[in-house]
Amino acid sequence: MPTDHDIIVAPATAPGGAIAVVRISGAGAATLCDRIFRGRTALATAPGYSVHYGRVVDGDRTVDDVLATLFRAPHSYTGEDSVELSCHGSPYIVSEVLRLLRAAGARMAEPGEFTIRAYLAGKLDLAQAEAVADLIASSSRAAHALASAQLRGGYSAALDGLRDRLLELVALLELELDFSEEDVEFADRGQLRETMERIRGEIDRLHDSFRLGNAIKEGVAVALVGAPNVGKSTLLNRLLGEERAMVSEIAGTTRDVIEECIDIDGVRFRFLDTAGIRATDDRLERMGIERTLAGIERARIVVRLVDAAIAPIPPIEFALRADQTLLTVVNKTDIAAPACALPNGAIGISARRGDGIDRLRSALRAAVDTESLYHGDPIVSNSRHCAALDDARRALDGALAALRDELPTDLLSEELRHTVRSLGAITARGAIAPDEVLKHIFSKFCIGK
Amino acid sequence: MPTDHDIIVAPATAPGGAIAVVRISGAGAATLCDRIFRGRTALATAPGYSVHYGRVVDGDRTVDDVLATLFRAPHSYTGEDSVELSCHGSPYIVSEVLRLLRAAGARMAEPGEFTIRAYLAGKLDLAQAEAVADLIASSSRAAHALASAQLRGGYSAALDGLRDRLLELVALLELELDFSEEDVEFADRGQLRETMERIRGEIDRLHDSFRLGNAIKEGVAVALVGAPNVGKSTLLNRLLGEERAMVSEIAGTTRDVIEECIDIDGVRFRFLDTAGIRATDDRLERMGIERTLAGIERARIVVRLVDAAIAPIPPIEFALRADQTLLTVVNKTDIAAPACALPNGAIGISARRGDGIDRLRSALRAAVDTESLYHGDPIVSNSRHCAALDDARRALDGALAALRDELPTDLLSEELRHTVRSLGAITARGAIAPDEVLKHIFSKFCIGK
Repeated sequence: MPTDHDIIVAPATAPGGAIAVVRISGAGAATLCDRIFRGRTALATAPGYSVHYGRVVDGDRTVDDVLATLFRAPHSYTGEDSVELSCHGSPYIVSEVLRLLRAAGARMAEPGEFTIRAYLAGKLDLAQAEAVADLIASSSRAAHALASAQLRGGYSAALDGLRDRLLELVALLELELDFSEEDVEFADRGQLRETMERIRGEIDRLHDSFRLGNAIKEGVAVALVGAPNVGKSTLLNRLLGEERAMVSEIAGTTRDVIEECIDIDGVRFRFLDTAGIRATDDRLERMGIERTLAGIERARIVVRLVDAAIAPIPPIEFALRADQTLLTVVNKTDIAAPACALPNGAIGISARRGDGIDRLRSALRAAVDTESLYHGDPIVSNSRHCAALDDARRALDGALAALRDELPTDLLSEELRHTVRSLGAITARGAIAPDEVLKHIFSKFCIGK
Repeated sequence: MPTDHDIIVAPATAPGGAIAVVRISGAGAATLCDRIFRGRTALATAPGYSVHYGRVVDGDRTVDDVLATLFRAPHSYTGEDSVELSCHGSPYIVSEVLRLLRAAGARMAEPGEFTIRAYLAGKLDLAQAEAVADLIASSSRAAHALASAQLRGGYSAALDGLRDRLLELVALLELELDFSEEDVEFADRGQLRETMERIRGEIDRLHDSFRLGNAIKEGVAVALVGAPNVGKSTLLNRLLGEERAMVSEIAGTTRDVIEECIDIDGVRFRFLDTAGIRATDDRLERMGIERTLAGIERARIVVRLVDAAIAPIPPIEFALRADQTLLTVVNKTDIAAPACALPNGAIGISARRGDGIDRLRSALRAAVDTESLYHGDPIVSNSRHCAALDDARRALDGALAALRDELPTDLLSEELRHTVRSLGAITARGAIAPDEVLKHIFSKFCIGK
């Protein structure tokens, strides 16, 4: 975990664009850049938030014409002096600029190291820092809203609020301990229980919101299940086709991601590839079926595709959990009128002609309740936070048990302190998170952020 | 060919980075951006070369925290008022920013449209504009030097110099025509011929430099030829392996390009996949051999790999042109001492162990003479320019023939005017190039440049 504040450098843009931005941060960044930058004025003497046209040079040779934007501590992303060099987007030029900056004394940044510095400088808490990576990865309106709210600090404020209320209780209990000989009760046990149970409920709600938060962040998993030839690929292509038309104006979005993901009204759905299910002795086919069942296990929504010409609709060959939604979709309504009445809630479609696709899209979207998201309720989308909440919940349950069993105040207080610590680990505001936590979080960041 | 100067917008960075830059250009760009940007001051009232921190908003909703950099006409890339919005590199955010800017009145830029505007504003001539695309695509030191020299204008100056000297001759000849009744000769025919022949030589040199320029720009084509199992793949992997270690610090360079290209001392070599050559009646095998022969045809360098254990070295099964270099490489020297004396200039290697690879790299590099490149000689790397030079050369030959045959001065003058026009088409300075030429050139640009 590099925490020494030397000067770090990294490309902040992906290769392949018209321009590339190289980011430099650390005390003395401007002076370091002056060693390879020739502009009208020296960057070292320039004020923050100023832009300078000039050349990056390697001795007598000009490497590129660039724009240098200067940021002065603490008014930068990292809180340190920083420079952004905007150059032509050639891989050769970017590698040369990096080479020259390293020769001038900078070193390549680790993934997320700019954001670590922002965190260590107190510009972001840990949950906000994590939101930066989520924001960059966000590819739907809902995922963006989630990351955005977390970055803006509303989420951290909610967690810190819970923590502060618990700390008040701890303070009262410890006051009792200080006066333990006098056998006073500063904290009314009835009120104490009521407050703890209310907080327990809020932790529960946050913990449960992870299911939605994670689905939104990773894409809501949809298993598309049906016999061979029932039209699974046609349906997927139909859904993707409409999606493609809609996203075509976003140049260069990675194709192999789009192939499996569909954005419906701001929520990303990730379709899992499944084979059909039927009783068989064939070993290869059984492996396909096992993969299908694993797909169903992971899915939040199962779309079961059946053929309009086949009656009666066969029974469901798999079990669903309470948190999973089943959509029965009857395909090929253009070829045959449904051979039997559609079961309740089933959607008739023609994947080939496009009939009923809007209804299916609406049904998929309706299966994901994002009401709370757009009303600003804090939602957990990070498994680290979910684990911390789980830990907090267990400690709080311990505290409630201690209260019920009238255990000594110091035991009760210790359980509450544990709860406070677990909640506090999420934002890690004020206290610097342990190195291994930072390492784990920031290793998943991209270079240059 | 859009030439109306409305406000255009495009992402200038590739998707997938930590940050993304959206570029807006046209009169009123700052005012337009103010409709979606909330900063401390309005961009419309801000000076050029200033940076502003703020938010991009969609009504009440914040889409992202951004930095807006303002450029004022004529001090911008396009020569127009321009804004660059630097936001988080999320595909969703970029698409939202583009959507909002379009809703505010901007339209998506065509490929290269920012550079077209720079050209139309007289900030670049046509050859310089073409160099912008080459610079962005450059991935080796030599390709970079080539594009760089062309962008900086040295190349254009050389061409314009030739053109000016021809124009002087035309002016003299046309003066003669004005005084034709008086039968004077302002241009001494001996001197005229000498000047024309000198220019003819310079055009020749430029025209011939295309072979080097094109090889450097596209990567020097190397055909690796040899019988199956002689170690072609091992050698390629060996060369690529050393290359990979060298380029590993450049994050994200496209893999499938690297797979076939190797940078040796600043020059990019492109290895062509070839099968072996041997007499056969098998139809499929014959197709492979035809592809091999086509690869040899396209190559500047042919590396012929033979097995150290086999003697004598078989005769060469293909014909080479004078402009092609043959390198004979004897592989597997670790297994067997060469079964016969290495022929003159042959290189003994062990692709498996790495012996002799440095010598092979040096020999490849030495086969490409880039001396003139680094001494600043203008080098043609663009097939459009090569065609124009060819055209100019033919017209100049016509003029020389007219001179030799003592044809009337107006015919001579017309041939020289043709030469001037052909040379002038390369930089198209002053005269705006025809729409179809611009269309052809700029359609190959990336979006956002």
